[in-house]
Amino acid sequence: MKESIGKVPGLAVILVGQRRDSLTYVRNKIKACEEAGIKSVVAEFPDSCAEEDIMTSLSKFNEDPSVHGILVQLPLPEHLDEEKILNLVSLEKDVDGFHPINMGNLSMRGREPLFVPCTPKGCLELLLRSGVEIVGKKAVVIGRSNIVGLPIALLLQRHHATVTIVHACTKNPERITCEADIVVTAAGVPSLIRSSWLKPGAVVIDVGTCPVEVD
Amino acid sequence: MKESIGKVPGLAVILVGQRRDSLTYVRNKIKACEEAGIKSVVAEFPDSCAEEDIMTSLSKFNEDPSVHGILVQLPLPEHLDEEKILNLVSLEKDVDGFHPINMGNLSMRGREPLFVPCTPKGCLELLLRSGVEIVGKKAVVIGRSNIVGLPIALLLQRHHATVTIVHACTKNPERITCEADIVVTAAGVPSLIRSSWLKPGAVVIDVGTCPVEVD
Repeated sequence: MKESIGKVPGLAVILVGQRRDSLTYVRNKIKACEEAGIKSVVAEFPDSCAEEDIMTSLSKFNEDPSVHGILVQLPLPEHLDEEKILNLVSLEKDVDGFHPINMGNLSMRGREPLFVPCTPKGCLELLLRSGVEIVGKKAVVIGRSNIVGLPIALLLQRHHATVTIVHACTKNPERITCEADIVVTAAGVPSLIRSSWLKPGAVVIDVGTCPVEVD
Repeated sequence: MKESIGKVPGLAVILVGQRRDSLTYVRNKIKACEEAGIKSVVAEFPDSCAEEDIMTSLSKFNEDPSVHGILVQLPLPEHLDEEKILNLVSLEKDVDGFHPINMGNLSMRGREPLFVPCTPKGCLELLLRSGVEIVGKKAVVIGRSNIVGLPIALLLQRHHATVTIVHACTKNPERITCEADIVVTAAGVPSLIRSSWLKPGAVVIDVGTCPVEVD
């Protein structure tokens, strides 16, 4: 990176608690940073930490010119105000794209967010690189989380798919998915989608990860 | 208003050009203000005005403590940068809810926008006051404009409908609408929806207005 752009980009990660999935995600991000020549720093906090400590750490990263991107690893423990914490991330450093202004610009036509959430962006890349046509296709997104389902639906819509979001309140979800050309599932429920839920030839991306017991 | 809340709320409207529909909308807003005891002021600009003039006027309204809400009547003439102008509206005075941060908070779960765009909010009120069940129902929104289609879809989703947005690229839109329990059309295309597009008992709200010739 230093050779190609003349300086070393810095990524700061805020990690609260000891969730296994969060630890894995953060470890993989740090590894990817090393491979790409990005300097990374992880601020770790115990599960029981005070909101103030995180806010202070975030403010420092916001002001630190050697930090160009900030990730707050989600989910945060219940007692912390996720909205308040994410809103403090400087817009220019919101590399996760979770700031409402980035999400608003993602949802609005003719606007461009500064950053697009990475998992949804990865899904889109998968479709594009695999030559899957999106324009005019019926796409169903299962799950409406702020960090995956919603931004994937918005991205597919930006690419002119006809998008339906299926969620926990949807009646007969299989009747909707079986009409879809593209199904993206991000529900966190293992084995939710059965073959009867899909039409032949449908493109399916399973974003969910669940730890499952194996013999 | 003065009696009930102790002060007179102020609404500022920015109107550019002489579009007939815009003039009608603004006239109706002013009338509604008078009826409700809201002081209104309209800043009118010619079609050919400079962007700077609007920005200056907007800044003044932002700083004016007697102005509590600001509306920029859309659409603006082509030569003006709508995004730049709308982004200047102070978040606390963005009564149209068109600021991306309001739209982002409308789209995200667990967030609350300061303001919700009025036409979408009106549609929702219509449904709620008419006792139409929304949770779990299939809703189709036709049109994906930032000011009507998108926020209606987001609002219906917030009320736990299963929402599909149909737009100009959608293939066989009637196959999608005829499955819907609720159809909201905001496409600006007269006579687009035919009876064959609807299932018996579907609730339909037509938001579009089009001047049509009559004998």
